[in-house]
Amino acid sequence: MQTARRPSEPDNPLTRLSFLLADDMRQVNALILANMQSDVRMIPQLAGYLIAAGGKRIRPLLTLAATRLYGYEGPRPYALAAAVEFIHTATLLHDDVVDGSEERRGQKAANLIFGNQSSVLVGDFLFSRAFQLMVADGSLDVLRILSHAAAVIAEGEVMQLTTANNLRTTFVEYEQVIQAKTAALFAAACEIGPIVAGTDGDAAASLRDFGMNLGLAFQIVDDVLDYSAAQEKLGKTVGDDFREGKMTAPVLLALENASVEERGFWQRTMGDLDQTPDDLRTAQGILTRHDAIAKGIGLARAYADKARSALHVAPEGPLRELLDDVLTFTVTREF
Amino acid sequence: MQTARRPSEPDNPLTRLSFLLADDMRQVNALILANMQSDVRMIPQLAGYLIAAGGKRIRPLLTLAATRLYGYEGPRPYALAAAVEFIHTATLLHDDVVDGSEERRGQKAANLIFGNQSSVLVGDFLFSRAFQLMVADGSLDVLRILSHAAAVIAEGEVMQLTTANNLRTTFVEYEQVIQAKTAALFAAACEIGPIVAGTDGDAAASLRDFGMNLGLAFQIVDDVLDYSAAQEKLGKTVGDDFREGKMTAPVLLALENASVEERGFWQRTMGDLDQTPDDLRTAQGILTRHDAIAKGIGLARAYADKARSALHVAPEGPLRELLDDVLTFTVTREF
Repeated sequence: MQTARRPSEPDNPLTRLSFLLADDMRQVNALILANMQSDVRMIPQLAGYLIAAGGKRIRPLLTLAATRLYGYEGPRPYALAAAVEFIHTATLLHDDVVDGSEERRGQKAANLIFGNQSSVLVGDFLFSRAFQLMVADGSLDVLRILSHAAAVIAEGEVMQLTTANNLRTTFVEYEQVIQAKTAALFAAACEIGPIVAGTDGDAAASLRDFGMNLGLAFQIVDDVLDYSAAQEKLGKTVGDDFREGKMTAPVLLALENASVEERGFWQRTMGDLDQTPDDLRTAQGILTRHDAIAKGIGLARAYADKARSALHVAPEGPLRELLDDVLTFTVTREF
Repeated sequence: MQTARRPSEPDNPLTRLSFLLADDMRQVNALILANMQSDVRMIPQLAGYLIAAGGKRIRPLLTLAATRLYGYEGPRPYALAAAVEFIHTATLLHDDVVDGSEERRGQKAANLIFGNQSSVLVGDFLFSRAFQLMVADGSLDVLRILSHAAAVIAEGEVMQLTTANNLRTTFVEYEQVIQAKTAALFAAACEIGPIVAGTDGDAAASLRDFGMNLGLAFQIVDDVLDYSAAQEKLGKTVGDDFREGKMTAPVLLALENASVEERGFWQRTMGDLDQTPDDLRTAQGILTRHDAIAKGIGLARAYADKARSALHVAPEGPLRELLDDVLTFTVTREF
């Protein structure tokens, strides 16, 4: 695997995309800041805490890139990119409450600092603001795409709850979960680009395909990194999924040919959540034995290839090249 | 106070409104049922548990009434009334998680049966569905009004968190909270009526005023009943606000002229949440001594009177008369 680099390094393609779209991103960030304001001070405090921590900002970058790719140069994508980021931030806040997370974006999770109650309600606020931004834009097509994505995300999160701690979860069910909870918003963020640009034909469907497959690749790699990453590189705690008993790609791949003893191990640790401090290392050993990390990355690469084919329907140019590099980065990154 | 009656009794004006709009409500209920479906089975299970328990359905009735009042006879209000009820249901689910509630609509709260995690996520799902219903209707004006209301509700809920257990909460702050968390959705549910009916002029603003003041009256009475209702009549536990230290009208009114001893009592019980089983009865005694129940109802009546003035701008007829009766019922009910 080629060495991936932190987003701040200049040859990381997400950094290069941010540079290329720097003027646009400044506008998006200004809108994000302006729209998280409220007379109720805890709202900008909590939202600001999470948003200031950064994150990859990959979703708003995708919306910007998908619009500029089709030659539209006006300001419409700013509010929509901010809306996409707000939907994502709202789901992060609710996720961290649901998972009882301790770390997010390299800092203490908001629920631990501000409480679960505030995280739920500020999530609701950001979600509503996202819709206000879309309504102000005024495109019913965009509203349809993003409100559908929001419903699908919630479905995916509920489905994930029902698969947790369940060793009989199939790989198909896992893919349904990640398609809903992650890839649907990537797809929507990209699909609205050609729509805002007013491009006819299959452009929106192709960009949707690109986003969907990029999202699947992105989430599978995330799930692999939860076992394989170096703690100091990852912006969250390694082994979170293991400790919560979340059934993700590496474990499901290792379960396919598990010995009776291994199956007993997974049942005790992830099924019954009866864990000792050494169990994560044991789990990592089993994954290595079954080549589950490499297999997971292989699957992610297959999705990245599908995304690349869809992307190549879009007009050629530096933006398309960079999105191509983002695909490569997604499946080679170490964080 | 005149004897209020359960909603099932035929001379309860909400029941009479339901009868008058029975055909319409059947369509709304069918849409509610259809739109809470999902392949993820826990979603209709949890949503159905709460929705089947009934509740007053006052918000969708208001949307229907506000549309029919202006002579529109088409199907558009069905989806919008369902959307309004979904927004309300989503906030109930999140509220009960935030408050750790034990009872809702006369049955165990959903969070106790399905878990906090599911309640958060199914709330998100219903909220998204509400927007999908509005987008399908296609009115950007309606979308603007309801997405604004949704953001304001979340602000009100966060503000309520910050006033809880704080004896220095002012009555103005309390009114800001209930205006945001309750009255804003009543106002929006009414305002969209004349908009759907295509009525020009001040109709929408008047109906918004009607809904806002009705909502304020409704919430103040709710907060009074939390101390004064007979347990067997109320669909939730008497004394919930007291046990959670929620600063509401009766306590704030009693605090205005509190003795040093009484202030100490409120600080210990509601400020520090250090309570004994007898404290609720003591609290009720203090409220009686300060006439706080009657004063609260008096305030609610003043809002109901404002609502009545706004309503009287609307066309005369049986619907307007019934909405007038609903105002009277709101401030005389015992549950």
